[in-house]
Amino acid sequence: MKLSDGVEWGVHCAALLAVIPAGTVLPGKALAEYHGISESYLVKHLQALTAAGILISIPGPKGGYRLARPAAEITVLAIVDAIEGRDSAFRCAEIRQRGPAALEPAVYRLPCPINATMLRAEMAWRKSLRAQTVADLVGGLAKRADQRAVEKTLAWLQERLRG
Amino acid sequence: MKLSDGVEWGVHCAALLAVIPAGTVLPGKALAEYHGISESYLVKHLQALTAAGILISIPGPKGGYRLARPAAEITVLAIVDAIEGRDSAFRCAEIRQRGPAALEPAVYRLPCPINATMLRAEMAWRKSLRAQTVADLVGGLAKRADQRAVEKTLAWLQERLRG
Repeated sequence: MKLSDGVEWGVHCAALLAVIPAGTVLPGKALAEYHGISESYLVKHLQALTAAGILISIPGPKGGYRLARPAAEITVLAIVDAIEGRDSAFRCAEIRQRGPAALEPAVYRLPCPINATMLRAEMAWRKSLRAQTVADLVGGLAKRADQRAVEKTLAWLQERLRG
Repeated sequence: MKLSDGVEWGVHCAALLAVIPAGTVLPGKALAEYHGISESYLVKHLQALTAAGILISIPGPKGGYRLARPAAEITVLAIVDAIEGRDSAFRCAEIRQRGPAALEPAVYRLPCPINATMLRAEMAWRKSLRAQTVADLVGGLAKRADQRAVEKTLAWLQERLRG
């Protein structure tokens, strides 16, 4: 079981977009450069985040990305769902309905306890990710940020912000 | 993010092995037949469960599998770990250390809050799976089992149990 690299990228990008000034946007190329990742792979994830209503994409030469709503209203779960999809990690194939002891389908109306157990664990995982917002993460990042990194980031942003 | 089919298979097999009489074993071929799944794929997972100390494998023509310890002492998490491995689903690539704002490695001793958030969610998932044992599942399965399925299972087991 593995989450795609896009989850790490998407959450970091959202955290960076949370600190750019209101009314500005940052191009996908800059988001890729800041995180040292492939622009072409990143674009796919930025598009998914845009489709999910987490980012707004402004097209054109003055275009780029910004958050679609306040960072305090974007949960980490929303970003993970946008990039990974909402399918559960455990997918019950109903093997209880196969084999020599199988009965007619009507017998299996209640969910299999094994499926229920696996899905309950995923709900606990989702609940934990829903409890954290991008604003929480930015707060955590800011608290431990080295002042030199903050200054380097601000200088770098200055050259790349648009709008 | 997807768990392998082997998780469903492994948990169902453990639940069936929890109800065979003490001193008996069930061959891998029978475990595959009972669940309507591929024997050759199942064997790999049964070997993983054996390596993890969840099953005991008795070799030879009278051989087969049984639980290595009481069902109440085997958690669902132990089965999932045996089949999926214990790597976390989120694997931080430390992209915070890349790009134009990166500093020397010593600055990044504390874990990234994004990594911490993802791992906290996985701990919640693991805690939920650790709270359920194979005995709990068998109890849940038994409570809703159709009596006809129980009888079919017992008759079928009669022909296949060894030891």
